[in-house]
Amino acid sequence: MRTFKVGLIRVLTTEDEQILYSHQNQLMEKFPDLDIETKCIPDQPEGIHSKELEAAAVPKILKTAELFDAPDMLIVSCADDPGVKELREKYPDIPVTGGGETTVALAMRYGEKIGILGITDYLPKAYVRIPEENRIAAKPLGVESTLDLLTDQGWENALKAGDWIKSKGAHVIALACTGFATIGLAGELEKRTGLPVIDPVMAEGLFAYYEHIKKADRG
Amino acid sequence: MRTFKVGLIRVLTTEDEQILYSHQNQLMEKFPDLDIETKCIPDQPEGIHSKELEAAAVPKILKTAELFDAPDMLIVSCADDPGVKELREKYPDIPVTGGGETTVALAMRYGEKIGILGITDYLPKAYVRIPEENRIAAKPLGVESTLDLLTDQGWENALKAGDWIKSKGAHVIALACTGFATIGLAGELEKRTGLPVIDPVMAEGLFAYYEHIKKADRG
Repeated sequence: MRTFKVGLIRVLTTEDEQILYSHQNQLMEKFPDLDIETKCIPDQPEGIHSKELEAAAVPKILKTAELFDAPDMLIVSCADDPGVKELREKYPDIPVTGGGETTVALAMRYGEKIGILGITDYLPKAYVRIPEENRIAAKPLGVESTLDLLTDQGWENALKAGDWIKSKGAHVIALACTGFATIGLAGELEKRTGLPVIDPVMAEGLFAYYEHIKKADRG
Repeated sequence: MRTFKVGLIRVLTTEDEQILYSHQNQLMEKFPDLDIETKCIPDQPEGIHSKELEAAAVPKILKTAELFDAPDMLIVSCADDPGVKELREKYPDIPVTGGGETTVALAMRYGEKIGILGITDYLPKAYVRIPEENRIAAKPLGVESTLDLLTDQGWENALKAGDWIKSKGAHVIALACTGFATIGLAGELEKRTGLPVIDPVMAEGLFAYYEHIKKADRG
């Protein structure tokens, strides 16, 4: 019985249903209690991979959130948590989270030295909370936006970047783009490196599940 | 269908079944997929509330872990994570965790200023990972061991300590003793303070659920 309604906001504009619903499908498979509804923001065909694109996305995220009908929770499915702070102020009565802060929180349990595999030249904001001396950040060669991850070369180079992170002594790898979830990288990278790999979509889902059982418990 | 076998080690020696199984019962109610088996270590009637008691407990925890039959995961149900490091070395092929590191990880998602409500004069080790300037630690008046939490006075003073933590500007309260879970303090304290309160037993359970779905997914 799906009883906890989650409004999931995608920051990649797409009409490809397989891509659009990939996060929702993964979440509903793993968390049968969650009732997920996806909406994507308009006019953001490359998602968010710069501060400028993030700034452009925030007002659209706030508008998109209004389209859900009485959700129990809102998730911005992006590792940079765009608009999460603003949504929290706008909807103080429901939990609001994003892919970045949930991934970083989960990673903390698996060790101190945290590998960060992302697609930007800057760290998404939640990852900055990891003490600088404990961060091992990498970006796959030739990957500039989430779309590049959908190519064979993007996949290969993401795995190689994971190898490099491991060689630098990471205890755990925190993925820093939800596009890695879209391509299902975490499982493969875990097998290859032997390290726990935290996938932002799974991290969002786990915290949604947590809010769900807390709500069921505490009313 | 309960499919993921968790060996739960209690560090409070008790024959009172309601107390002994309180963590297991809470976990199995909230996470129907988890198959929890509880064992408590011997000769530790006050649990762990000092470095000496912790040192005495570690070898007993290692011995107790041997009594489980092929668990998928081990949890030391204590906010100081006693023996977690040692168990991880002994059982490298299964996940091992404790109440402290899971609570601290979850708390990170809810804000920077983290209230810590415990029963010891020192911080359990995982809580030391929170930057010092962001910790707001308190101990209920008159509470020296987990047993004192079972009294009306212990309950009242725990709530008052929560009020004080809130008054100091905490964004979230991380409980630092699983004895608070035994008495069900988190829900009451959340209602009273309006802050998210992370309960170590729920935190252990959430990470066990995470390991379960990861295992189901990745084989």
